[in-house]
Amino acid sequence: MQLDAVLARLAAGHERILGELIEFASIPSVSTDPAHADDIRAAAQWVADRLAAAGPLDVRTIVTTGNPVVYGEWLGAPGKLTVLVYGHYDVQPADPVEKWLTPPFSPTVHGRRLYARGVSDDKGPSLIAIKVAEAFFAVTGALPINVKFMFEGEEEIGSPSLDGFIAANKELLKADLVISADGAMWRPSEPSLTVASRGLAGLNFTLTSAAKDLHSGRHGGSVANALHAMAQLAASLHHADGRVAVEGFYDRVQELSAGERAAIAALPFDEATYRAEIGAPGPSGEAGYTLLERQWTRPTLELNGMWGGYQGPGQKTVIPCEAHAKITCRLVPDQDPDEIVALVMRHLEVRVPPGTRLSVTPGDHGTPAAHIESGHYALKAAAAALESVYGVPPLIVRMGATVPIMELFKRHMGIDTVYFSFSTSDEDYHAPNEFFRVRRLHEGLEAWARYWTLLSEVRA
Amino acid sequence: MQLDAVLARLAAGHERILGELIEFASIPSVSTDPAHADDIRAAAQWVADRLAAAGPLDVRTIVTTGNPVVYGEWLGAPGKLTVLVYGHYDVQPADPVEKWLTPPFSPTVHGRRLYARGVSDDKGPSLIAIKVAEAFFAVTGALPINVKFMFEGEEEIGSPSLDGFIAANKELLKADLVISADGAMWRPSEPSLTVASRGLAGLNFTLTSAAKDLHSGRHGGSVANALHAMAQLAASLHHADGRVAVEGFYDRVQELSAGERAAIAALPFDEATYRAEIGAPGPSGEAGYTLLERQWTRPTLELNGMWGGYQGPGQKTVIPCEAHAKITCRLVPDQDPDEIVALVMRHLEVRVPPGTRLSVTPGDHGTPAAHIESGHYALKAAAAALESVYGVPPLIVRMGATVPIMELFKRHMGIDTVYFSFSTSDEDYHAPNEFFRVRRLHEGLEAWARYWTLLSEVRA
Repeated sequence: MQLDAVLARLAAGHERILGELIEFASIPSVSTDPAHADDIRAAAQWVADRLAAAGPLDVRTIVTTGNPVVYGEWLGAPGKLTVLVYGHYDVQPADPVEKWLTPPFSPTVHGRRLYARGVSDDKGPSLIAIKVAEAFFAVTGALPINVKFMFEGEEEIGSPSLDGFIAANKELLKADLVISADGAMWRPSEPSLTVASRGLAGLNFTLTSAAKDLHSGRHGGSVANALHAMAQLAASLHHADGRVAVEGFYDRVQELSAGERAAIAALPFDEATYRAEIGAPGPSGEAGYTLLERQWTRPTLELNGMWGGYQGPGQKTVIPCEAHAKITCRLVPDQDPDEIVALVMRHLEVRVPPGTRLSVTPGDHGTPAAHIESGHYALKAAAAALESVYGVPPLIVRMGATVPIMELFKRHMGIDTVYFSFSTSDEDYHAPNEFFRVRRLHEGLEAWARYWTLLSEVRA
Repeated sequence: MQLDAVLARLAAGHERILGELIEFASIPSVSTDPAHADDIRAAAQWVADRLAAAGPLDVRTIVTTGNPVVYGEWLGAPGKLTVLVYGHYDVQPADPVEKWLTPPFSPTVHGRRLYARGVSDDKGPSLIAIKVAEAFFAVTGALPINVKFMFEGEEEIGSPSLDGFIAANKELLKADLVISADGAMWRPSEPSLTVASRGLAGLNFTLTSAAKDLHSGRHGGSVANALHAMAQLAASLHHADGRVAVEGFYDRVQELSAGERAAIAALPFDEATYRAEIGAPGPSGEAGYTLLERQWTRPTLELNGMWGGYQGPGQKTVIPCEAHAKITCRLVPDQDPDEIVALVMRHLEVRVPPGTRLSVTPGDHGTPAAHIESGHYALKAAAAALESVYGVPPLIVRMGATVPIMELFKRHMGIDTVYFSFSTSDEDYHAPNEFFRVRRLHEGLEAWARYWTLLSEVRA
């Protein structure tokens, strides 16, 4: 049987594929920092080279309004489904660099984990799809279905160019289904399929209280302190019970049905274990919802950064003239990202503390929340592939995080997205010491080969 | 007349003395940063060398529990007063360095100002006293009074060693009066004498909400955000009317008498001009007091620094696990620094937001507020010296800032301090682009020569 031969070839190639991932993760393709523009280009080229080496794919690097999209297609299976494989080659910043135990861009295997920025999100999972195509081509000279690959370089900054790119390339990207290598499994202990993701919207703001930092003895008491104003304004964003205090923030939010709440409550999950794992001293969050409900189905407003004044050793008796904050909100159906940013801006503007000036900048492009209907044929095939690999059916879960593609492909092209990533959500992919479980690389290679094979049995 | 000859020599030496100040200010003697320990030693040695070169002074560099004290004495005027001249050779940090128009430790004359960190606070004013001694020795072979010089290296970190040093060296330092080269005149437009200073007490604190930074999608809603907790806790430190909200903070504060309020109200001062000078968008401060009352006679609690999370370009969707803040309070009679720190600590401890852990560190050694009685003979002589130089009598003002020596010398040795500095309070000495007016160097040299001469007529 051809699948067995493909699986055998993939199993024999584990070390070589791990070596390629180490090479990929050595490129510091940080999309949020303009200083890494050359690294972004290098990572795109690396992906294009790997695709071209995988087999008779038509590969191109396509210019966008931002970072390039690496595209490759093989359409040699008439009558079969056409799937669009999505992944991204850009990564989060490595800050705070001093908290990494090994250098973030010197990938290091330690025990059964590979440590490096981007290795879990999303270089490891993306590479899996390419290597599965390579194995099929090597063993059978073909793929079991038609496949279009699309790797973008702006996922970590909210994919600002992707909307326009998809809108302008509907014919090129035309497919029956999107399979995303990005998304992450819920936990390391069991397989899972994610059927919904939260959206994202953000903004940055600055408060100014004087033209320059002032001596706190000379001026203290007679001028506003930008940090006091910041504390006051930032504290105004939440009520004491954890609810977001921005007027209108929850207006479009759909309340969960009793059935949805019951399904979430039925999942195996222990709050105390979760808190122990992340080192949280105690519970915190919006009143009236369970922890998983808050994490998956309730919107949030988070300060991602806040700063001003002296941060060095010792004391500096200064009245800081500027304070800064960065905010992002996680959104749920049917919140609109632009409307949420506007509501937060208005909240800030009407509360500017006396003696200070506010300046607000909208953040990167926003993303609405999204979901796929339970019972979709591609979900069923994905569940079957995972059960073959793991011996148990996957849990059906949601995702607190944001992957814009599900909503974008649905809106522009009317097609659904299956998250089929072998990243795991505990792999610290937005924190220091990001890692990827080496076994997930092996599991992912097998599961993708099985998934494509199962999809080849579905009528296009 | 000998004074005229001394003044003529000083006037002829302006360029040479400015050159020496440039050399002194080139040494980055930042006391708050251990990385500058060698520079602290170099600055102490520079002062000792200049004192030794000034005349037949007995000069020594005295080890303390912290940075060395540079001491020099000449006691050749029996029957005359003995004054202890105080100054400091350490400086504030230069942060934020990127806001300096010229490098902070490359002193640069621009127009009629000399720009460099520490040039106004307190290297220029300190050098004046040394150069006046040099001129008297050169012209007359003697000083008009007995003089002890004492330059410390910890003023900018609250003089932690000074208390013990004075207590242990009462005999060495014994004098009738302290003349401080540190302190600053109120404004550039008229001479002034400062008769009171506020005290200082500080602490730093950190809030922790998890063992590491967390992805705001994966975890948002289910874990506390250290920045939200920080905003809430920091905002709790003040009431909406600007009063400090720490229980007991004002308990020992002496309310101003009607006469004191009238004297302050009579000073020439325009609030709108003041705010325009510092670039403040509007008024701010404790309700019920005028601006000068708040600046000179009311205590404050200021956040000098507050930070956590991502501060780089773009967005980073992280839930920060740590937030930090630095606080200092300016104190007035009869607040006790240790008690104030304890009150603020208690305020924080009982308000730790859910899901976070608080850690508090007391700041550098505190300093109580201090004052000198109006009518003191040394104040009268200082006023006469200033009137000779400026043609108008000085304004009698207070100081919002903290110079610990007045309280220390009074407590340990029972003697009063006259602030006789030629720094000016608008010279940005705790901010970028600190400068010293070159004319103040000339005015100071003349005034100190006149002041010592006037004091020589006072019976010891």
